[in-house]
Amino acid sequence: MKSEYVNPFVEATVETYDTMVGVRPQRDGKLCRKAGIFAAYDLVGVLGLSGKVCGAVIMTTSVETGMKVVSSFLGEEVEATSPDLLDGFGELLNIVAGSAAAKLNGLNIKLALPTVIMGKEQRLTGKENSPWIVIPMAFPEWGKFNIEISMEEK
Amino acid sequence: MKSEYVNPFVEATVETYDTMVGVRPQRDGKLCRKAGIFAAYDLVGVLGLSGKVCGAVIMTTSVETGMKVVSSFLGEEVEATSPDLLDGFGELLNIVAGSAAAKLNGLNIKLALPTVIMGKEQRLTGKENSPWIVIPMAFPEWGKFNIEISMEEK
Repeated sequence: MKSEYVNPFVEATVETYDTMVGVRPQRDGKLCRKAGIFAAYDLVGVLGLSGKVCGAVIMTTSVETGMKVVSSFLGEEVEATSPDLLDGFGELLNIVAGSAAAKLNGLNIKLALPTVIMGKEQRLTGKENSPWIVIPMAFPEWGKFNIEISMEEK
Repeated sequence: MKSEYVNPFVEATVETYDTMVGVRPQRDGKLCRKAGIFAAYDLVGVLGLSGKVCGAVIMTTSVETGMKVVSSFLGEEVEATSPDLLDGFGELLNIVAGSAAAKLNGLNIKLALPTVIMGKEQRLTGKENSPWIVIPMAFPEWGKFNIEISMEEK
């Protein structure tokens, strides 16, 4: 994946949270490439990307941080057992991905449906020839999250 | 989601497993619509769909069944801790989705990257106005799995 695809996702993430949730996340350490099996947080949103690319973007955080984020986004407290937690997190991912796609308009990216999975001890894989680019980020008071991107031009 | 979109996914699943894995899965009970929070098996493959639709298809099974399936697909035993389990399961989902997309060629479906998540106590949500269509299926000797589809025309 080309490195110039990273910044549009970072900018889209910061702008989306700033505008929609009223909080400004920051980069939290160096980005890294992950292949093989690696761990995710307990809340994992996946959104497929197609068009001139074949890819996906993941947004993942702890249930605790996700509850703070989505409660602020929706303007009402969400419980860990509420569908609103997953639906709200998926909607935020959808806005982030739509904003990043607009910044990468030469790639004509089409968004699939966001799918959010909540579980324990969750793991993903990346392929050696097409690893995930993991961007560690954090909210000032709510905790850490990652944006993870895998995207190849067709 | 239109009901005529279901059968192409069922046919694609049967044909893919028959051809690529040498086993012929069957329907295992009535399909159902799921909204709200619902459980998935421990191995969940997600593949985003776009084009004239916005959607996703999920293939989900137990780790035990997934190991049997992927071992037969790859022609070598895979362990529960191997990236090959997740990568092989994702590749099978990719073939299923590609075959279903070809059968639904009027929809011009574009596939995103398959993403496979392995975990425990995994849950998903569906929206009331756009539920997942869950198709319970089973391998003759290996156990149960589901194909789950959510797809709306744009």
